This record gives sequence, structure tokens and C-alpha cells, in this order.
Amino acid sequence: MRVGRRFDQRGWVMGTSGNFSVVLDRHPLRLAVTPSGTFKGELRADQILEMDERATPIAAGEARVSAEALLHVEVVRAREAGAVLHTHSIWTTILSERHAAAGALFIAGYEMLKGLEGVRTHEHHEAIPIVGNDQDMTRLAGVVRDLLDQHPSAHGFLLRGHGLYTWGTDLQQAVRHVEILEFLMEVVGRSSQLSAVSSQLGSCSE
Amino acid sequence: MRVGRRFDQRGWVMGTSGNFSVVLDRHPLRLAVTPSGTFKGELRADQILEMDERATPIAAGEARVSAEALLHVEVVRAREAGAVLHTHSIWTTILSERHAAAGALFIAGYEMLKGLEGVRTHEHHEAIPIVGNDQDMTRLAGVVRDLLDQHPSAHGFLLRGHGLYTWGTDLQQAVRHVEILEFLMEVVGRSSQLSAVSSQLGSCSE
Amino acid sequence: MRVGRRFDQRGWVMGTSGNFSVVLDRHPLRLAVTPSGTFKGELRADQILEMDERATPIAAGEARVSAEALLHVEVVRAREAGAVLHTHSIWTTILSERHAAAGALFIAGYEMLKGLEGVRTHEHHEAIPIVGNDQDMTRLAGVVRDLLDQHPSAHGFLLRGHGLYTWGTDLQQAVRHVEILEFLMEVVGRSSQLSAVSSQLGSCSE
Amino acid sequence: MRVGRRFDQRGWVMGTSGNFSVVLDRHPLRLAVTPSGTFKGELRADQILEMDERATPIAAGEARVSAEALLHVEVVRAREAGAVLHTHSIWTTILSERHAAAGALFIAGYEMLKGLEGVRTHEHHEAIPIVGNDQDMTRLAGVVRDLLDQHPSAHGFLLRGHGLYTWGTDLQQAVRHVEILEFLMEVVGRSSQLSAVSSQLGSCSE
Repeated sequence: MRVGRRFDQRGWVMGTSGNFSVVLDRHPLRLAVTPSGTFKGELRADQILEMDERATPIAAGEARVSAEALLHVEVVRAREAGAVLHTHSIWTTILSERHAAAGALFIAGYEMLKGLEGVRTHEHHEAIPIVGNDQDMTRLAGVVRDLLDQHPSAHGFLLRGHGLYTWGTDLQQAVRHVEILEFLMEVVGRSSQLSAVSSQLGSCSE
Repeated sequence: MRVGRRFDQRGWVMGTSGNFSVVLDRHPLRLAVTPSGTFKGELRADQILEMDERATPIAAGEARVSAEALLHVEVVRAREAGAVLHTHSIWTTILSERHAAAGALFIAGYEMLKGLEGVRTHEHHEAIPIVGNDQDMTRLAGVVRDLLDQHPSAHGFLLRGHGLYTWGTDLQQAVRHVEILEFLMEVVGRSSQLSAVSSQLGSCSE
Repeated sequence: MRVGRRFDQRGWVMGTSGNFSVVLDRHPLRLAVTPSGTFKGELRADQILEMDERATPIAAGEARVSAEALLHVEVVRAREAGAVLHTHSIWTTILSERHAAAGALFIAGYEMLKGLEGVRTHEHHEAIPIVGNDQDMTRLAGVVRDLLDQHPSAHGFLLRGHGLYTWGTDLQQAVRHVEILEFLMEVVGRSSQLSAVSSQLGSCSE
Repeated sequence: MRVGRRFDQRGWVMGTSGNFSVVLDRHPLRLAVTPSGTFKGELRADQILEMDERATPIAAGEARVSAEALLHVEVVRAREAGAVLHTHSIWTTILSERHAAAGALFIAGYEMLKGLEGVRTHEHHEAIPIVGNDQDMTRLAGVVRDLLDQHPSAHGFLLRGHGLYTWGTDLQQAVRHVEILEFLMEVVGRSSQLSAVSSQLGSCSE
């Protein structure tokens, strides 16, 4: 609930977007997930659902699990994550479009990178893979599974025109990763506004 | 009240701007509306007015219904909406000016579009019509009536240099539509800052 | 106090900047003013000072009246204002520098202008005069007196590299004017980012 | 705690970044410091650590003092500061990269400069030195010591790609300096977006 309010105030889960999950049990896999179509800044404890590895709610009821919950399951399996968070911010939406052709967003040189688990220096190079958005969640889950295999050291990934997925061994680490990656993407986005103007204009005025 | 505070914190109803309505009854038409000239972040329940289809308050009193309430009536009739929300944000003001000549703002490819009622895929193309601002509210109500007729699938419209109107079957859906459309317009506005620089400069440096 | 918190959350009175006054009596002139060097988001009622027309505190004590209080006195006299508010925002600082040579910032065509007292249409042209900043407050008060004389319909003015002064018949109207003018200046600032790029680049690529 | 919440809301200490210290005693030197790896917006009093001049915690325990605490010690010694604050904002990160080659960021002409202790006029020229980031804190502490020696009138410094250090005789003054410097850097950053476009394009269209 607190996480929802925090991200809502920052404008990262507007209009009922975004979804969060926490692992309750691994054998068999059980996740607590946020229900589809709710404002994440106003969640109540009794709205949280419990689902299995096929993203099916354990208890019968009216609330729906988001179809994207299948992606949470892929992340939990591939990374042994304890919590998975998905946010929809202005800057992740913009940058996932602009860097889609490159297949990834590359970030290096910032101290803030050290907030990512296992990173010891600002000289670290982080590659955040970008995959095309898809409404077929089974197919997209397969793409995400391959992506997590091929980028074993990535701390998150972007869905094009959609938003960020990141995770952590527990909810607190996952929240930290969201804040670090959202911060870095805003820095990259605003810096490119400045440098596009000055560097490209250099060649123009010559 | 909660909606007012929420939008106020996001800076979408500054300086007593914006107005909200909810349908109380359809035969005859009765709407609860926010009074003119109040800060929407500080509304009290006893300030909410009840008005009829001519935007005339039911109870005599000092508080005024905004002249724009006639536009709410048009939306309620054309869309069978249960709630109509009007916000004045920075980005809707800017984009309604910049795209006025085109008559509409076109948005496609973003996952966030799926938050609009009835939209099933990010490949959806949303056209948000833009009409000129007018202080003659009877005349403007006629323009809005035609616009709603001609764009039966639009989820909102922009008044030039003024702001956004959107709606929903109930207040929660209308709030979701405000957040979705405001989010998308900020994405479009900030993206055009980046692409104007890079694409147009491409031709410049050749 | 509420006004201080509201403006503090919007980032308009950072680092103890800004000052507010309300007329208590006109004969002789008495104003309640915020003390110098306090965080406006954390004001307590017992910190508010009472001062006369020379900006001298009525009660002896340690707290200082800001030297800028002389400008509040000029506004109260010239406009018969009941409240004067001075904010230091990012956008008023930037625009007061950029438009200093023109002597004023011109704004027209926005519905939000109707929030300024006496304005009936978005076609209104508002000129916001800009004066050079000066640490000699007696001299600056004279400049402001002349400016208010020469621009009888202005709703506010800018001190270059410094911020906005606006006022109202009472505190609520003054708060509305702050929000309206700050909103419009952010619109103007962000629009000029977009149009500078696209219009000037037009001539560049030809 | 209040300072942490305030800066957290402004987005200056995202993802457990940032650290704060207050001098408790000077002989021998004892500082209260925020622990490493905590969200600064959610600090509790019992999490604050006490450390000596080698940045070693006085009490044994699990919580770690950030390695950067050595820089706080350098500032306290060189400036006789009573409080040292380190923030990681979007704009300090961007500007510390862009002006790194110049070795400092120069700011002049803004009224807000008067919020810096000892500054009497907006005509003041403030130079904010920028040093390269380094994971070897002992070496970086030496660099900072020299920097503070060579710039006796600086009110803060930037670590490249990392953030801002500033201080004050007490915590309130240090908070004021953070807000002043963060404000000015946002003004400089946004202004350079506007002027890069218009001034450089001038030469382009000739």
C-alpha cells in the first residue's frame, strides 16, 4: 500500500496503470499481486490477490489478475526475485520508444548506478533491454524469458511504449531499483534534450 | 473532494480552474457540479451544487454554476456519461495550441491507451478533437454537440488554449480517463521536444 | 500558513525565499507580514509580524521584516490591495531574465487569463512589466511606484532574476493570481522551448 | 527525519541515495549520520548513527555508515560546519556532467544567491567546484580537502555524475543552502535548454 502511494505521488502509476507482486511461497509458486484496474495510490489490503504460476487467482472472486502477471512469473523464475514491480512513467515511455531500434538503453558513469544490487562503481555499464509491446501475453512471456536468459546481469527491462519492469530479492530492494532506474532514465532523457541541441547544432553552424 | 485534491496536487486545476460534474438523475436531468471560483483542492461537500439541464442551480443561493456547465450537459447527453471532468493542465494548454490547425491531436502506439474504455490494444489510434475557445457558451455548446456527433469514438476533446474535457460511465472511470489522457499528452509534448531537435536537425547538418 | 505550505509544495518559495502580507488596517496602515529568513512551508501563527507603512515592526523583537516589505506597501497603496504575495519560482526567474530587454512579458489567448480579476475573455492581452533587481529597497520602491502608475491594469510584475509580485483584494484572490500567473509563465516557458526549436529550425534547413 | 521527508518529496534522495550529518561534539569529533542503504524519506530516530572522525560508528551494530561520511568530516573541519547535506538530484547530476570540463559551475545575477550565507547582492558570482567521482573514499577525501582550501568562499561542491554537497553552521542553514543551490541549478539547466536553441540557432540561420 505504501509503495503504491509513493509511486502514485511521483506519477509513475497513473490511471490504474502499473502492477506489483511479492512472492509468498515458491513450492508451489504463490504470489500476492495487485488487482487489475485499481488506482495503485489507493489500494487496500483486502484488494490484494493471491495467484499461482499460471497467473490464476487462488480464491474465486470478482477481481481480475492483470494479464501481465505472467511476466512477473517469468521474472520470479529467472531471477529468483522476491518482488517484481512494473511502473509506467513519462520518461520510461519516451525512452523505450526512442531507443527501441537499438534494442537497449545504455547507461554508464553515474553514481546512482551503485544503487543497483551488485554494482560497485559508477563506471559500471548497465544495458536495459527493450522489447516490443504485445497484447498476446503468452507470447510476450516467452520473449521475456529469452531476454532474461540472454541478459543475465540486467536489473530491469523496458516494454516499448509501455514502461519498466524491475525486481529485487525483497520488496525494499525492488522499490530501490525502481527509484534508481526511473531517476537514471529521467537524467538520460533530460540530458539528451540538452546535448541533441548543442552537439548536433555544432555540425549545423559550421 | 478526493478527486479535487488529487488533481490539485498534480497541478491540473490551478487558480480555481477546472470543474467536475456527476449525474444524479437522468429524468429529469440533475447534475452535482463544482461551484465557480473555488479552489478544487479545498472543496467541501456543502459547496457542491445541484443543477438542471440548462445549468441552472436547483437551490437558490449565492454560489454560481460555471457557464461551462452547459458543456457538461452536452457530454452527458451525447455519451450517456455518469461523470464529466474538465482539467487545465500545462501540457493540454500547450498541445491544444500547437495542434489547433490540425483540428485534432493523434496518439497511437502507447500501452497507456488501453486505459481508455473499450480500447484493447496499444495499436489503437486515438484522435482527440480540438475546438476553438469561445466565451459564448451557448454557441460553444452547439459546437461541442456537433463534435461529439462527428467523433463517436473520441474519449475526450480539447478546448484551444484552455484544457481537456473527458468523461466516464462513473466518476472512477472519468478520473482514469483524465489521468490517461494527461499522461499521454505529457509524453507527446516532451517527445516532440526531443524529436523536433533531432529529426529537423538531421536535414540541417546535411 | 496554509498558503505557505501550498506554495512550498509547488516549489515556489524554496530556501526561505518569498514573502506574503495581508492588510490589517488602512488608517494608519498596518500589515501582517511573514518574517525574513523563515521556511514558508513551516510558518507558525506566532511568527507572523505586524508592521507599519515604513516596514517597521510594531512590536520590538528579534524577528526581522524583509527589506522587500517596502514593495508590499507600494502595491497596497497603488492598488488598494488587501493581500500581496511574492513568489520565487523556476519559471518566473527564467522568463524575467529572458524578457528583460523587452521590459515586459506579454501573454494572450489563454482561457486561464480569465482567472485574473476583471478579465472576461481569453482574448485579453496581459502585459507583465519586468524591472531590474536592486538591493537598494528605497530606490526600488520608487521604481515600483512608477511602474504601478504606468501600468494601471497590470495584475503583477516581475523583478529580473528574482520572481513575481501579485496581489488581490483579499488573500484568496491573491493566491488565485499567483497560481494563474505561475501557470501561464510555465506554459509560456515550455512553449518557447518547443517553438524555438521548430520555427527557427525551419529557416535553418532551407 | 523532517529533512529526509522534505527532500524525498522533491525527488532529491531517490533510491536510498543521499546522506546527512550533524555535529554533536567537536573535541573529540562526533557526528550524527544517516545510515547507508536507507530510504531518507522514511528514517526513524533510532536509525541515526553516531560516528567519529574516521567515519567509524561509536556503537557496535549492524547498520553501516556510508563510505562517503569521510567527505562530511572534511567539510566539518574545513568550514567549521555544524551540518553537512548531500543530495542526488536530476539537475545536479546533469550539470555536474556538462560542466565537468570547466571544473566549476558559475552562477551570477540571481536574487536567490542572497540565500547563501554572507552573500549580500544578486550581483554575487558563485563558483561551484566540480570534482571527478571516485570509489576510493580516502583519495576522494584528499581531493575534497584541497578543493575546500582552494575555494574558501564556495558554499558547496559537485561530485561529477553524482550530486551536491553543501553545509551550514546548523541544520537549518544547511537545508536552506540545499534548496538555494538545487533551485539555481534547475534554473541554469532549464535556461541552457532555451538559450542553446535560440543562440546557437542564430548562427545557423545566417
